[in-house]
Amino acid sequence: MISEEMMALGKKRSVIREIFEYGKIRAGEIGRENVFDFSLGNPNVPPPDCVKEAILDLVNTEDSVTLHGYTSAQGDARVRQAIADYINATYGTQVDADNLYMTAGAAASLSICLKALAVPGDEFIAFTPFFPEYRVFTEAAGGKLVVVPSREGDFQIDIPKFAEALTERTKAVIVNSPNNPSGVVLSEDNIRQLCDVMREKEAQFGHPIYLITDEPYRELVYEGVSVPYLLNYYDNTFVCYSFSKSLSLPGERIGYVLVSNKMEAERDVYAAVCGAGRALGYVCAPSLFQQVAARCVGQTSDISVYKKNRDLLYNQLTSFGFDCVKPAGAFYLFVKSMEPDANAFCERAKQYELLLVPGDDFGCPGYVRISYCVSTEQILRAMPAFEKLAKAYKA
Amino acid sequence: MISEEMMALGKKRSVIREIFEYGKIRAGEIGRENVFDFSLGNPNVPPPDCVKEAILDLVNTEDSVTLHGYTSAQGDARVRQAIADYINATYGTQVDADNLYMTAGAAASLSICLKALAVPGDEFIAFTPFFPEYRVFTEAAGGKLVVVPSREGDFQIDIPKFAEALTERTKAVIVNSPNNPSGVVLSEDNIRQLCDVMREKEAQFGHPIYLITDEPYRELVYEGVSVPYLLNYYDNTFVCYSFSKSLSLPGERIGYVLVSNKMEAERDVYAAVCGAGRALGYVCAPSLFQQVAARCVGQTSDISVYKKNRDLLYNQLTSFGFDCVKPAGAFYLFVKSMEPDANAFCERAKQYELLLVPGDDFGCPGYVRISYCVSTEQILRAMPAFEKLAKAYKA
Repeated sequence: MISEEMMALGKKRSVIREIFEYGKIRAGEIGRENVFDFSLGNPNVPPPDCVKEAILDLVNTEDSVTLHGYTSAQGDARVRQAIADYINATYGTQVDADNLYMTAGAAASLSICLKALAVPGDEFIAFTPFFPEYRVFTEAAGGKLVVVPSREGDFQIDIPKFAEALTERTKAVIVNSPNNPSGVVLSEDNIRQLCDVMREKEAQFGHPIYLITDEPYRELVYEGVSVPYLLNYYDNTFVCYSFSKSLSLPGERIGYVLVSNKMEAERDVYAAVCGAGRALGYVCAPSLFQQVAARCVGQTSDISVYKKNRDLLYNQLTSFGFDCVKPAGAFYLFVKSMEPDANAFCERAKQYELLLVPGDDFGCPGYVRISYCVSTEQILRAMPAFEKLAKAYKA
Repeated sequence: MISEEMMALGKKRSVIREIFEYGKIRAGEIGRENVFDFSLGNPNVPPPDCVKEAILDLVNTEDSVTLHGYTSAQGDARVRQAIADYINATYGTQVDADNLYMTAGAAASLSICLKALAVPGDEFIAFTPFFPEYRVFTEAAGGKLVVVPSREGDFQIDIPKFAEALTERTKAVIVNSPNNPSGVVLSEDNIRQLCDVMREKEAQFGHPIYLITDEPYRELVYEGVSVPYLLNYYDNTFVCYSFSKSLSLPGERIGYVLVSNKMEAERDVYAAVCGAGRALGYVCAPSLFQQVAARCVGQTSDISVYKKNRDLLYNQLTSFGFDCVKPAGAFYLFVKSMEPDANAFCERAKQYELLLVPGDDFGCPGYVRISYCVSTEQILRAMPAFEKLAKAYKA
């Protein structure tokens, strides 16, 4: 009698959450230091100092009624202007406050964009590996998720396969770079080809095909890798951003949707974003953290910790015989399972107290995700276990 | 090509917001002190001291990674336990942490409940006057809002009309007491009759009919009026609560859904609530304010200011010849328009710089809402204008 679909969704615990719960139980049995949990994508590096400073200053000096009061539905105008100024200064764009809609994080940003766009029958394209909630959000908005496999080996977009997947029903294409779970950053060349194909298909089908870029990991890149800013490559672009990873604030739910100033019928699309936010019950993004975001925009947590972890893990694991793409960003390593069934591989890893996430839910069977947003000490302690696991498969 | 429905929703500025914007322009022309804006429902009383104390203490003493990190989707377990303990101590219930699902405020609570319940063809009943977003949220969830007029004169539920409106398709009934926009509190007697009818119809139709009680104004009541706690009257009850009004934190988006421990198939329904939260893109309620809510639960802003404002406005307006029910709670006065068209009446009120909200969007043409969450000084300054307005209709 209630919604069976929602009940099923609520009952289906995410695989990641199940592994995490198992880890907690196991820690109770054998000690936390002996369980090597690489399952969760929760930043382990503290927020930059500006976050605490901003909260204290705001709470101590601002009028509390205004500080904690409703902002306009699209977000405080000065907050949006500060973020627009930062984006323009950093990426050479010309957006303004009215292109931005503040949200309760990237999940809200995506849900709102999809709801703003979807009409029954619409298809939305995602590339493997992809964040499993893309399917949930797309279906909740009434759309259908079409999955296009990425290139084996480097996880760049497979342009010919992509071109084939585009149909008259394609409403939008979702990209996520740096990628969860592979850490791969799409190259500028790959992006250009993607956009060329999309423009060609727009002309062929006679309607816009939108690009939705989900980029909570934009600032988490290593060795000066540059992440192309998609507004500069394609006009019909939405940027779905979150401060969760850059400022280590995932629980506070603060992010934005940026509707490109060059988008076709931009004011209509922006209105649809506002309407979707309203329909989904988002009244405004959390007000204190809107102000915090404006004050800290462009700053990041100490990402050198993630780089150190990545180098340590990547170098050691490959020396043990594991096969993976070296991640240029985010805080995940996406490793080939040493047997075809990644679930069986993860079960075997558990015997060495290693908690890894099978890639099946990310649309990539045969791979496992290893989150390195953990302490460097845990990685060091886990090394013998990884070595034993690799040897077990060679024996 | 995009969702026309969302675009229309985003473009239709709320009447309240339009009046508010007009007020800002008018204040620029004739001075803020000469414009009497009674349009917005934004608390004007600061949060209680515990809010600032809690924020400072949490930020200064807690581990920042945990404080700002993800909580479980249903909310931090200790936060939920603290709120459950408060509810049990206050209302004599026996709920526990697992009956609570923390949300980003009452709008999220309602959207999530409706999404958890609705299957195509479902009807949801609301009583006039009602918060206009009920229609938006119900339709977004795929349901149909059925509006039942309340009793003229006292705005209690019209039981015979309600009984007639219940059909086999009725999935749930939404009540809001203390009410926005009338300030009316439903009497215990009225609640009992409502619940009796619902139980009767449940038996007749052979399926649950849920009661959804939207109660952000629960603590804002005057002269010791008691607001019946619906869990104690009806088993299939959801409480949608927000700390927005009690703690003057509307911008922070913090509240909860309480699924009655006595609800039929309670674990299934709770799972559907979790699934709906997930599908709508709510990852977890804002984490810092979850902790603030747990520490401040049961406290309120200084509501004596609202009572003073109510008394002043009610006594003076009725002495000028205005007709309205004396509100027992919330911070609104719902006054009969002095001409049949409340929009025309509001336009006329503007000539005296009085900004009032027509009742049409609340399902009550012929009434206007006057928000008294404003400074007492504004009310005092506005009195001659109200008097002139009344006289203009008597002339």
